[in-house]
Amino acid sequence: MTERTSRFPVLRACLLSLAFTSATPSFAAAAGAVQAAGVVDFRLENGMEVVVIPDRRAPIVTHMVWYKVGSADEPPGKSGIAHFFEHLMFKGTNNHPPGEFGQKVAEIGGSENAFTSFDYTAYYQTVPPEALATMMAYEADRMRNLVLSDDVIGPERDVILEERRMRIENSPDALLDEEVAATLYQNHPYRVPVIGWMHEMEQLNRIDATAFYDRFYAPNNAILVVAGDVDPLEVRTLAETTYGALAAGPALPSRARPQEPEQNTKRTVELADPRVTVPSFQSYWIVPSYTTARDGEAEALDLLSEILGGGLRSRLYKKLVVDKGIASSAGATYSGTSLDETSFSVYGVPRGDATLEDVEKAVVEEIAALVRDGVPVAELEKAKTRFLRSVIFARDSQAGMANIYGSTLATGGTVADIAEWPDRIRSVTPAQVRAVAAKYLDLRRSVTGYLLPQPATGN
Amino acid sequence: MTERTSRFPVLRACLLSLAFTSATPSFAAAAGAVQAAGVVDFRLENGMEVVVIPDRRAPIVTHMVWYKVGSADEPPGKSGIAHFFEHLMFKGTNNHPPGEFGQKVAEIGGSENAFTSFDYTAYYQTVPPEALATMMAYEADRMRNLVLSDDVIGPERDVILEERRMRIENSPDALLDEEVAATLYQNHPYRVPVIGWMHEMEQLNRIDATAFYDRFYAPNNAILVVAGDVDPLEVRTLAETTYGALAAGPALPSRARPQEPEQNTKRTVELADPRVTVPSFQSYWIVPSYTTARDGEAEALDLLSEILGGGLRSRLYKKLVVDKGIASSAGATYSGTSLDETSFSVYGVPRGDATLEDVEKAVVEEIAALVRDGVPVAELEKAKTRFLRSVIFARDSQAGMANIYGSTLATGGTVADIAEWPDRIRSVTPAQVRAVAAKYLDLRRSVTGYLLPQPATGN
Repeated sequence: MTERTSRFPVLRACLLSLAFTSATPSFAAAAGAVQAAGVVDFRLENGMEVVVIPDRRAPIVTHMVWYKVGSADEPPGKSGIAHFFEHLMFKGTNNHPPGEFGQKVAEIGGSENAFTSFDYTAYYQTVPPEALATMMAYEADRMRNLVLSDDVIGPERDVILEERRMRIENSPDALLDEEVAATLYQNHPYRVPVIGWMHEMEQLNRIDATAFYDRFYAPNNAILVVAGDVDPLEVRTLAETTYGALAAGPALPSRARPQEPEQNTKRTVELADPRVTVPSFQSYWIVPSYTTARDGEAEALDLLSEILGGGLRSRLYKKLVVDKGIASSAGATYSGTSLDETSFSVYGVPRGDATLEDVEKAVVEEIAALVRDGVPVAELEKAKTRFLRSVIFARDSQAGMANIYGSTLATGGTVADIAEWPDRIRSVTPAQVRAVAAKYLDLRRSVTGYLLPQPATGN
Repeated sequence: MTERTSRFPVLRACLLSLAFTSATPSFAAAAGAVQAAGVVDFRLENGMEVVVIPDRRAPIVTHMVWYKVGSADEPPGKSGIAHFFEHLMFKGTNNHPPGEFGQKVAEIGGSENAFTSFDYTAYYQTVPPEALATMMAYEADRMRNLVLSDDVIGPERDVILEERRMRIENSPDALLDEEVAATLYQNHPYRVPVIGWMHEMEQLNRIDATAFYDRFYAPNNAILVVAGDVDPLEVRTLAETTYGALAAGPALPSRARPQEPEQNTKRTVELADPRVTVPSFQSYWIVPSYTTARDGEAEALDLLSEILGGGLRSRLYKKLVVDKGIASSAGATYSGTSLDETSFSVYGVPRGDATLEDVEKAVVEEIAALVRDGVPVAELEKAKTRFLRSVIFARDSQAGMANIYGSTLATGGTVADIAEWPDRIRSVTPAQVRAVAAKYLDLRRSVTGYLLPQPATGN
């Protein structure tokens, strides 16, 4: 996985151990390069989508179920229910007591985890291939037979509140990130944190949980992704026996979230705290995602992010960190895998005698220079090569491949999109890169977060 | 009405000609001083609340119906439906074609209007007392017999879109105010403009309108306020004959809106536009309203607003406009009449050679001085006198009185609150004023909007 997630370590830890969020790089396609050779996708009668990614190189299989529901689908006032539900799925069913599933995975030498993001919630295990049927049975069981009593709900709610205290309330980084999101998105539920607002988490109850479960946890709202040492036909048979035995759930509500209005202002969000030792800034813009973009703008934004700030060869790194030595880090991010509009950002951390203003000014100048002068073909081609190569490496990881398919399908993409993505990247022109920079990176319509060491003066 | 609404003229025009919003001063009680003498309140069998305010000084009567629904009660994604509905109520019923009601009012020499706010929507006419029965008949008729066809909906939707273009899209002031609200409120629907977001207004349709009507336009969700040359018993009889004949609507959903999380950042919102000739700033904090406050904090906030920036005798005016001559205007606002938390603000406009920074710095210093040194008893007592006197003047206006009762009752207050309010104001101590300033006016947790003349540099 390339280093394009939010540079705030606490938020990343939260996001990664909890969730692959839409902040992770557009996975949309590591496999593309090797190609969807052998990838098989079909749908069960009850509506469940299935993708099988054969990969015989090692005798393991990654089994994932993705539900097309995330924090952005939560009812207003009930933030945190999607993530809460991720916890509740481990509390046992009518058929299997809490912990039995996890114990089984451990016994066979496998591993398991789950994560919640804005647009999806996923559960997965990595196990020997012969255990696949068992994994499916357990996963299909908890899709519909979870025990949701007050005995279960109450204590687990305390667990998520404690998780929020640990990860967010005690972290100036994370608190700032939350308020940046709430400022960047003026209408869309992406402005609400995945873990939820504390005061709303405190109120989540059994009725909320049951309603959520019955509405969203059904085979017609799920995507099964199986990657590894498997035969697609066998997977199909197994899937039909386990998941296929479940009845389709009720017709799903549309995933039409409230969208962003046109924005017209430059906003800043500042948090000063004695625990912050080095100041930093990050500027954000709302941009199209792979799902909402037209005319190749998402691919152009991915390459803009690579060129501007994707790594050691990027303009920001070379100019600010290497040449001028004013920043200890500087880069750009683009969170392309998202059902709705998403964000593009640039960031910087000063080094030595340089001030935060110096670094911010230099970043702004780099963007202006790119908009003014464009990108030479040679630089763009090198960026494409680097970018494709780094994403292709993800295919060597079963989990990486499964994630690409799962996250793409859960956010409105298709298997064909994954296959075509590398060619779309290759066909991006310098003019397109310059155009998206000019069109979207307008500071007059941006939000910049500042994390500062001293408490602000004033008052 | 005292000058405490938002100082942005366009927004005020919008708000006032359209609506008394929760931004208007806590009317909560002009009548208090003369006293609720003669004010009668009761409820019809179908749940409709009725308040009669006899005022025999002139042979007119103000007849108002307040619905306990405003923009903050709208479903997500359907912003603008409450205000749209205010328009639709004038489009005729099964019994009376469009325009007949208005024509009738004009014929008898009366006047009529309506307004939508965050927490309520109100319709009123001012007419000779003998026309009261007719007004009630028409108003009761349109409460339940409105014609909502596509022929009606389509053209009127164009009207509200044009209204938005005129009042908001073409006004840097108004655009900034919208984004300030969307930044100040991170979770509560007060962050959504009353008129709605353009892209959501465009999608409002007959189904949305009908659902809204059936849910919220019912006698058990309405307050009838009749002020003027009337006898309460006669009003009761008339009300029972007209409104009383309507069946109660379905049980109403709770008015529990998503509440604000704890805020931890200092935010700014900036809009630069060539049409702006003089820069200005306004800083906002989230504070309790009369409905949510405890321990007299709302009354203390009202007096803090009066002392800091309520008019010609206020600290900001005297120091910045008169003594230093650096501002052409400076003041404070507190929007106390609100179902949920509300805002307190301070603002300033530089004059002559003074810069915006000079003015902002001076305002910040005045707040700091008040927090540091408190308020002398004598100054507080004068402020109370001024404040009560200015609000009492509202009693001379029937519309003012009716507004106080209607807005208070529609935002969780009671007739008793209105009667007790003047004494609660009188009992506020200097310590309480200083305490609310220290507790709430923390710049580290604030939002400041800047309206600037030149386009921002950058990019």
